[in-house]
Amino acid sequence: MLYLVGLGLSDETDITVKGLEIAKTASRVYLEAYTSILLVDQAVLESYYGRSVTIADREMVESNSDEILRDADKEDVAFLVVGDPFGATTHTDLVLRARELGIPVRSVPNASIMSGIGAAGLQLYNFGQTVSMVFFTEGWRPSSFYDRVKENRDIGLHTLVLLDIKVKEQSLENMARGRLIYEPPRYMTVGQCASQMLEVEEDRKEGVYGPDSLAIGAARVGGRTEKFVAGTLKELCEQDEVLGSPLHSLVLLGKRTHELEHDFVREFAVDRDNWDRIWKADYQGQ
Amino acid sequence: MLYLVGLGLSDETDITVKGLEIAKTASRVYLEAYTSILLVDQAVLESYYGRSVTIADREMVESNSDEILRDADKEDVAFLVVGDPFGATTHTDLVLRARELGIPVRSVPNASIMSGIGAAGLQLYNFGQTVSMVFFTEGWRPSSFYDRVKENRDIGLHTLVLLDIKVKEQSLENMARGRLIYEPPRYMTVGQCASQMLEVEEDRKEGVYGPDSLAIGAARVGGRTEKFVAGTLKELCEQDEVLGSPLHSLVLLGKRTHELEHDFVREFAVDRDNWDRIWKADYQGQ
Repeated sequence: MLYLVGLGLSDETDITVKGLEIAKTASRVYLEAYTSILLVDQAVLESYYGRSVTIADREMVESNSDEILRDADKEDVAFLVVGDPFGATTHTDLVLRARELGIPVRSVPNASIMSGIGAAGLQLYNFGQTVSMVFFTEGWRPSSFYDRVKENRDIGLHTLVLLDIKVKEQSLENMARGRLIYEPPRYMTVGQCASQMLEVEEDRKEGVYGPDSLAIGAARVGGRTEKFVAGTLKELCEQDEVLGSPLHSLVLLGKRTHELEHDFVREFAVDRDNWDRIWKADYQGQ
Repeated sequence: MLYLVGLGLSDETDITVKGLEIAKTASRVYLEAYTSILLVDQAVLESYYGRSVTIADREMVESNSDEILRDADKEDVAFLVVGDPFGATTHTDLVLRARELGIPVRSVPNASIMSGIGAAGLQLYNFGQTVSMVFFTEGWRPSSFYDRVKENRDIGLHTLVLLDIKVKEQSLENMARGRLIYEPPRYMTVGQCASQMLEVEEDRKEGVYGPDSLAIGAARVGGRTEKFVAGTLKELCEQDEVLGSPLHSLVLLGKRTHELEHDFVREFAVDRDNWDRIWKADYQGQ
């Protein structure tokens, strides 16, 4: 059996009891470690499960999935995924490959950022499609997210923006020389995301949102040091220190809001008077 | 401290290790049992936690929350919620009340149907807003869900439809006579939901979907007997026996689909030829 086991969002104790049993007893355990990360290290997980864990990087999962699936028709293999196993496309591929090989698959769900973000106080019913934000470079500033945010905003819905992480990256020079030297991991912050969003609005000028649009910055959702900061996109450009260490996410508010959402989120506002003023003018009763 | 603890979707072992520790050691434990249910009884949970658990019905949570919060500034109170604690509005109220009373709150996330539905093979990124379907009665057939499905469909997105459950309901007669006798619980099936959706389309005639629109029926998501059936809405009117016992949910497909979604979901189709034909004609590359 191939078990896809969700690890939840934060530390080693966010695994479910059912998932932990599988992680302890499976023949082999892989940890998918490139679409998201836990806030604890591999060593912590290994000590918690009482066994070694193999890191499965993108290359392994995408090009060498048969190694992961080896003998899984006869024994149990656990593939651990941060959050919920079905958050990312890659794992769909793995399941399809297992099916081709006649390997039974079972998944153990867990918290995903897509539901965990509810802790910020916005109603999950009022979220539209989720978008991703990648690190912009000089020549590459993809703005397809902007069209999707526009679709959500046009019908009043909130948008969860998932932020890029870069792990096991090679510099161009090291790649050219074939040196397996990796750059330190990078995690996009709420401030970087808010700035990039405002840059794209300045380019596209369709008025999908602006510096005074309300948003929530989220850090370490589901963890003991979970932190939310609410404010305008402009305000959120400058809140990275308050938010602290990774992972960060951002929610851009839609205008179809509920009074309870106002009351709940206001607690996190950088500037409550400003929050109330903009809410009243642009969001309330829209 | 007030702990809001997610129980996940299926049985007693879907709680996280962190959540279990809280359920075992808190001074008092409440179980919210009216917006969703686990697939196991209260007695199983009590034996698993090694303690008694108080059922918190809607009346208690909405009208008597101060009893739940009593002394939570000095001791730990656990409020257990099926799925993730922030799936339903009611719990937002409870947190706001705790804040008023100066009681610290912490939540322990878990799988929600809103992310768990990813196991059906549709990309979570491609879901629009979630809607709810209530049991229609002679005089009450609310169709606001239809407008929201339309908004999602207009931009090509999938829609998760959450199905009504009725627990601790009184008959009108018993209510009138003040008799605290409750009807047996009722859980809407995929077949009932699909029929009601088609009824509303026949009334409203805006062509938001029709008998040949593709959908997925889901039963016991995240459980050992999880079951998905894919087909047209018309086909899904007749699949309740295949799907089996509660809880059920339904996903209406949007037209912005990915080939991987086709390959993954096809496995669950009532009639694969029909599925392929409609997919190719109406969904692929839209």
